[in-house]
Amino acid sequence: MAPSTVSRAFSRPGRVNAETAQRIREVATELGYRSRTRTTGLPPTGTRILGLVVQDITNPFYAEIIRGAESAAAEAGFTLLLSDAEESQRLEREAIERAMPAVQGLILTSTRMPEAAIRVLSKQRPIVVLNRAVPDVHCIVTDTSRGVRRAAEHLRELGHESVTYVAGPSESWADGIRWSELVAAAAELGLRARRVGPFAPTLEGGAYAAQELAADGDTAALCYNDLVAVGVIRGLQRLGRSVPEDVSVIGFDNTLIADLSWPSLTTVSAPLRLMGSAAVQTLLTPREDWSPAGQPTVLPTRLVQRASTGLRRRP
Amino acid sequence: MAPSTVSRAFSRPGRVNAETAQRIREVATELGYRSRTRTTGLPPTGTRILGLVVQDITNPFYAEIIRGAESAAAEAGFTLLLSDAEESQRLEREAIERAMPAVQGLILTSTRMPEAAIRVLSKQRPIVVLNRAVPDVHCIVTDTSRGVRRAAEHLRELGHESVTYVAGPSESWADGIRWSELVAAAAELGLRARRVGPFAPTLEGGAYAAQELAADGDTAALCYNDLVAVGVIRGLQRLGRSVPEDVSVIGFDNTLIADLSWPSLTTVSAPLRLMGSAAVQTLLTPREDWSPAGQPTVLPTRLVQRASTGLRRRP
Repeated sequence: MAPSTVSRAFSRPGRVNAETAQRIREVATELGYRSRTRTTGLPPTGTRILGLVVQDITNPFYAEIIRGAESAAAEAGFTLLLSDAEESQRLEREAIERAMPAVQGLILTSTRMPEAAIRVLSKQRPIVVLNRAVPDVHCIVTDTSRGVRRAAEHLRELGHESVTYVAGPSESWADGIRWSELVAAAAELGLRARRVGPFAPTLEGGAYAAQELAADGDTAALCYNDLVAVGVIRGLQRLGRSVPEDVSVIGFDNTLIADLSWPSLTTVSAPLRLMGSAAVQTLLTPREDWSPAGQPTVLPTRLVQRASTGLRRRP
Repeated sequence: MAPSTVSRAFSRPGRVNAETAQRIREVATELGYRSRTRTTGLPPTGTRILGLVVQDITNPFYAEIIRGAESAAAEAGFTLLLSDAEESQRLEREAIERAMPAVQGLILTSTRMPEAAIRVLSKQRPIVVLNRAVPDVHCIVTDTSRGVRRAAEHLRELGHESVTYVAGPSESWADGIRWSELVAAAAELGLRARRVGPFAPTLEGGAYAAQELAADGDTAALCYNDLVAVGVIRGLQRLGRSVPEDVSVIGFDNTLIADLSWPSLTTVSAPLRLMGSAAVQTLLTPREDWSPAGQPTVLPTRLVQRASTGLRRRP
């Protein structure tokens, strides 16, 4: 076994496979060897913990990110401290306060915290923010620009002349960027864009939004996330409207429910498991090897076309 | 503030509300007071952590349990260390080994570990097992007997004369009990019961099972969980069979997807959030107040009738 492999097993546990790492650790323990890792705050032995804060554990979007993070963490001998903010800024802040003393690094997903507060945290522990861009902090986001552009093009090709954005929480960074990218894409493509909301980022929020959509009569809706989109579809159906015959509906995230809803949901897909594992890999990189937190890492998106979008019905 | 409230805030943090508890702790800290809690292993200050091991974080069943556990833990000033076993006994064992040193108590959901191993763990930390009955360990299960009985009665009323149980993992305690309860209920009601499987407890597992069901021609299926049931429905539909016209399908758990699938899924419902919060409440009870681990706590179940079950088509 090359000495560099042994060295990696201690300093960057994610870079060798789990079996090799385990064998190395067993041999090293027998020899009375104790690692001194280079990662800030990383304990040489004992429980290695990374914190992960999600906004809503019941939203399958987070389940995918958790799976990716958990799997990468386990591979490196770490466990995850999970906090569920339940879409509440107060609960999020309290959860982070409880978690900080125990973790060697922290992943914040879709956090609603003020930027200044996030920068303060990043002085105390290595921090990676997912699904939001914060200056001077390591962030991983998805290519919203491309995703929204593809969605708008798809609607244009189907003959739609206008699109309504069904907004999520106003404190959500992703919500703001989705709307501004839609405005830009719509202007280029000659679509009229309007916005309704904010609505709760849930099935219920979507069902509520459906009433506004039905009253308004727009033929296409781009929704904050899959839960809202499926809620919109079901709400429209209850009001006697057909999807996609009367209204085409597009979601975001391509979660489990996109494929299960009826009709199945056209949605903007991003590699959520990869997002979770990339966050863990970043935290496991020795801190002095971190690149300066400049531009966020951008993961690719694509439009998954299913049955909830169709040709615009002639007026 | 009554002295008993102050005392509870330290010894049973779950029994006073979070704001009161926080105020008490602040005042106590100012006075130089440090609590000595009576709960085994519970640190007087610092991070308080409970471990929670789930089999598959992407199954919405576990999301509901996590939400219940997280919420009860947060209320008491605790955070959750989450481990995802990914339905692997090896990964589950490794995750528990990593988690044990850091946690003051551990919740195992649907664990596949041998009973002896669970009893060994329960000597090291307070343990609560969910969704499985293990002798001499505190367990919380759902009333499978009643749930299966209601499902069988429902099928009988619809004119079905036989039912196929679509089995999940053979190491799953819940799988075994569901099948044995179905055999008992079927015998009483004059239904023929057979079993196919085991299948993976996923949409894919269900789609695979659908091939066997279609070949066999049975008119009713009771499935290991909602994911398998929805997989069965979609698999049958792809094979040209209609649900419920050709085959009635029933699931277990009443998760998010039961209501979203098409047709919507008739399923056995249990209070999953309550299961999660009850596990945390048990762990937060001072250990000397624990009742001897005798019979498991049984939470009620009910049959939620939706559109996936219907009258048996005349042969």
